[in-house]
Amino acid sequence: MSFEKLDALGRRLESLEHALSILGADEATHMAVGGGEKRAEAMANLAGMYHTQSTAPEIRDWIEAAKAEDLNEDQTLALGEFERSYVNATCLPTEFVERRTVATMRSEQLWRELRARNDWDSFLPALEGVVDLVREEAALRSDALGLAPYDALMEQYDPGNRTETLNPIFADLKGFLKDFVPEALDVQEEKLSQRPLKALKGPYSIENQRELGLAAMRAVGFDFTHGSLAVSHHPFCGGVPTDVRMTTRYRTDQFLFSLMAVLHETGHALYEQGLDKSWSHWPLGKARGMGIHESQSLFVEMQLARSPEFWSFALPMIHQYMGEDAIPGWDATDVLNQVNFVERGYIRVDADEVTYPLHVILRYELEQDLVYGKLEAAQIPEAWDAKMTEYLGISTIDDPKDGPMQDVHWPGGAFGYFPSYTLGAMIAAQQWSALEKSLPDAREQIGKGEFDAINDWRRQNIWLQGSRYSTPDLITRATGEPLNPEFFKAHLRKRYGRNG
Amino acid sequence: MSFEKLDALGRRLESLEHALSILGADEATHMAVGGGEKRAEAMANLAGMYHTQSTAPEIRDWIEAAKAEDLNEDQTLALGEFERSYVNATCLPTEFVERRTVATMRSEQLWRELRARNDWDSFLPALEGVVDLVREEAALRSDALGLAPYDALMEQYDPGNRTETLNPIFADLKGFLKDFVPEALDVQEEKLSQRPLKALKGPYSIENQRELGLAAMRAVGFDFTHGSLAVSHHPFCGGVPTDVRMTTRYRTDQFLFSLMAVLHETGHALYEQGLDKSWSHWPLGKARGMGIHESQSLFVEMQLARSPEFWSFALPMIHQYMGEDAIPGWDATDVLNQVNFVERGYIRVDADEVTYPLHVILRYELEQDLVYGKLEAAQIPEAWDAKMTEYLGISTIDDPKDGPMQDVHWPGGAFGYFPSYTLGAMIAAQQWSALEKSLPDAREQIGKGEFDAINDWRRQNIWLQGSRYSTPDLITRATGEPLNPEFFKAHLRKRYGRNG
Repeated sequence: MSFEKLDALGRRLESLEHALSILGADEATHMAVGGGEKRAEAMANLAGMYHTQSTAPEIRDWIEAAKAEDLNEDQTLALGEFERSYVNATCLPTEFVERRTVATMRSEQLWRELRARNDWDSFLPALEGVVDLVREEAALRSDALGLAPYDALMEQYDPGNRTETLNPIFADLKGFLKDFVPEALDVQEEKLSQRPLKALKGPYSIENQRELGLAAMRAVGFDFTHGSLAVSHHPFCGGVPTDVRMTTRYRTDQFLFSLMAVLHETGHALYEQGLDKSWSHWPLGKARGMGIHESQSLFVEMQLARSPEFWSFALPMIHQYMGEDAIPGWDATDVLNQVNFVERGYIRVDADEVTYPLHVILRYELEQDLVYGKLEAAQIPEAWDAKMTEYLGISTIDDPKDGPMQDVHWPGGAFGYFPSYTLGAMIAAQQWSALEKSLPDAREQIGKGEFDAINDWRRQNIWLQGSRYSTPDLITRATGEPLNPEFFKAHLRKRYGRNG
Repeated sequence: MSFEKLDALGRRLESLEHALSILGADEATHMAVGGGEKRAEAMANLAGMYHTQSTAPEIRDWIEAAKAEDLNEDQTLALGEFERSYVNATCLPTEFVERRTVATMRSEQLWRELRARNDWDSFLPALEGVVDLVREEAALRSDALGLAPYDALMEQYDPGNRTETLNPIFADLKGFLKDFVPEALDVQEEKLSQRPLKALKGPYSIENQRELGLAAMRAVGFDFTHGSLAVSHHPFCGGVPTDVRMTTRYRTDQFLFSLMAVLHETGHALYEQGLDKSWSHWPLGKARGMGIHESQSLFVEMQLARSPEFWSFALPMIHQYMGEDAIPGWDATDVLNQVNFVERGYIRVDADEVTYPLHVILRYELEQDLVYGKLEAAQIPEAWDAKMTEYLGISTIDDPKDGPMQDVHWPGGAFGYFPSYTLGAMIAAQQWSALEKSLPDAREQIGKGEFDAINDWRRQNIWLQGSRYSTPDLITRATGEPLNPEFFKAHLRKRYGRNG
């Protein structure tokens, strides 16, 4: 049976992915510094084996033959995802992939060096090369998939997302935020004039912070028989579903940032741990995409862990693990004022949840213009500055390091990825609303530190669904309606608005 | 050029080995408990890819064609090792390998279960199956290599070792030890009647023990830019030459055992770190074999770290890392009396360096008889007991758990491996003697904690030689003469004898 050949192929590919995931996590956590060169060579060779095995011409024949076979529903859906993976993996000629790999690697290396020197002009030629390649890639993917070029790029990260649907949603959200950011800042100012922000008084020991982080992970449902927490320069959630490798980093003058980062990554981890393990060797059994993945991390971080209910439960944990004097005299409101502080800033990754979407929308708009030739790389600084000034009232024209050079995505050629971040925020809010309908006391449960029923809802509606459905279909099935920005807007109004 | 094809194949195989080594080390140190099943599947699939790629029929053609090519000396030697690896990898039919893998896996699992229950009778049928397979394997290897059957088994672990040479050496050593063990015990009794053994007074914190171990590793030359130390249930030295993964374990009532184990594994690590990195993707660039590897670990453990000179240097490190009260009032002699304590015992892995070779010789003799059909598995307990009684004066007849069931080697089908342990001890003593000839103040250097010149001698004579020469040739080149048990006997006499 041809489906069995695909099944066996899936097991071989899963083993190579397993090795690449664990080697990648190990590199960031436990590798000796001098081990990098051989590690890179090993991972490149394994990735090459993965590519060769996953794009073999006979797979096309197996897929076609399997369509005529007697398959059950899971197998039929699995076959669709095998085909989607195969088409996405084979739609670029090898010659192009090699050319792109060399160019984006070089561009990323240059970016690391030149960003530190705030040197846009020297970086520009490399970025122009990447933009040319991205246009070429978008055209190739567009031809193969029958999608608009930018949609064909997004399809890699969130199958089914289309600019036709997303443009009005992002436009609506942008319009809302232009008014709402000032409102949130005003409300915050009034609140803080009544009750000033309290200062953290370190040093906070790393050992205590680690214990607190582990306790928080355990509380919200992380399964330590299938995962662990380590330290790395940049926090990530990697590994494999049966052995999730989460990391964080610590500062001794702060512990709330690390704790919130741990909770964010725990959201990713719960999704991976909650996938159906019996399908893990099929594309069908993997997490759906970047937008859904981000919705799971932001669900834990934004919907759960930045809520007043969470802190009525979590405040005693701070005392327990950090000592009674860690935040002397603070109540839950003091913590919330810290972790939910709103501020107009230059840097996307440092942004709060109110201003963050504007950073993403700016990039989403610019990268469409770049892909469609309406904007050239040389024009980015002015275009970036104009939008930053319009959306957030701050100028980046003299500081490309904190402007268009701040992210690795464009130097690395990852166009079509940025929208996932804000889609994740919107999807998380919409999921919370749907969940609350079927679990009316969900907020009280958070306040008691009870996350089982909340996780069960997510397990049934998101995690166990793997890649059965496109991103839009998964949203509709889980929440009863298509993506609707009103849920996220209502969430922001409630938490940050004048009548919240 | 065909040699270039072998070179490229070597890089692919090195990448798969890299993944398997790191995944193996990770499994024992950082893997979540629930990750084992998928890890086993991934490693089995990667090992399958390794087998397929390393035994492909066209490799035979490349090797033959490369013989006619214009190769330099390194390439010529490398080609010889490519051929040796290929012949050793392909001399067993796939059907046999699969049959053996299933049988030894099952037998190992049974052994773990039944050893704990001291149940030889239930284990016997599985071991009989393994012995049949080992006889079959020895015959197959013998045919392919033109060696005697037991020699063909040893050839996997120490190329060039032959029973014809080793039997008289082991017989000589056995004869020596039969008299020398009683002498060493008498001498020890006299010494301890003058100065009784001091008792260790824990608890010794694991953190302090770890720092002491790291300091000892650093002192004898471990390169922390190419390796690290972690914790595992059984200490090992794994990973890859650019990123050696060493482990140890700790007991809070003892710190000397862990420290000596760390020093032993550091000996393995130095060999791996000292290999020529430019050849790491050729069989030629890998460590020569098990006997030479053990000689490097025992060189550090026995020749260096159990010597009086070492402890005149190392005693202050104990005070520094374990605190002044860790061993109050001890001098170097007190430590030496602890770490060099001689005792007749049942268990090979717990044996001191005087009695250890008798444990090995017993196994070496029995496994030859098993391979040649002079002994059947059912007769092992009696044969084992007879030799234990003759060599060490202790009986194991009622306690198979601490007799023939104590080691994993036979349940796992690894016949021909045991001699490596005692060969390593003899080679280490012979190397020390050769080294001292060219570095007459080597003992004083140890006493000052200076290991650079000692390591340079080993680097030039052993480490950088990789697999250029067979085990016997490497010994002769490094020490000026073939393996000679007199050096090890002299070492034992000096350390433990009446006139030492």
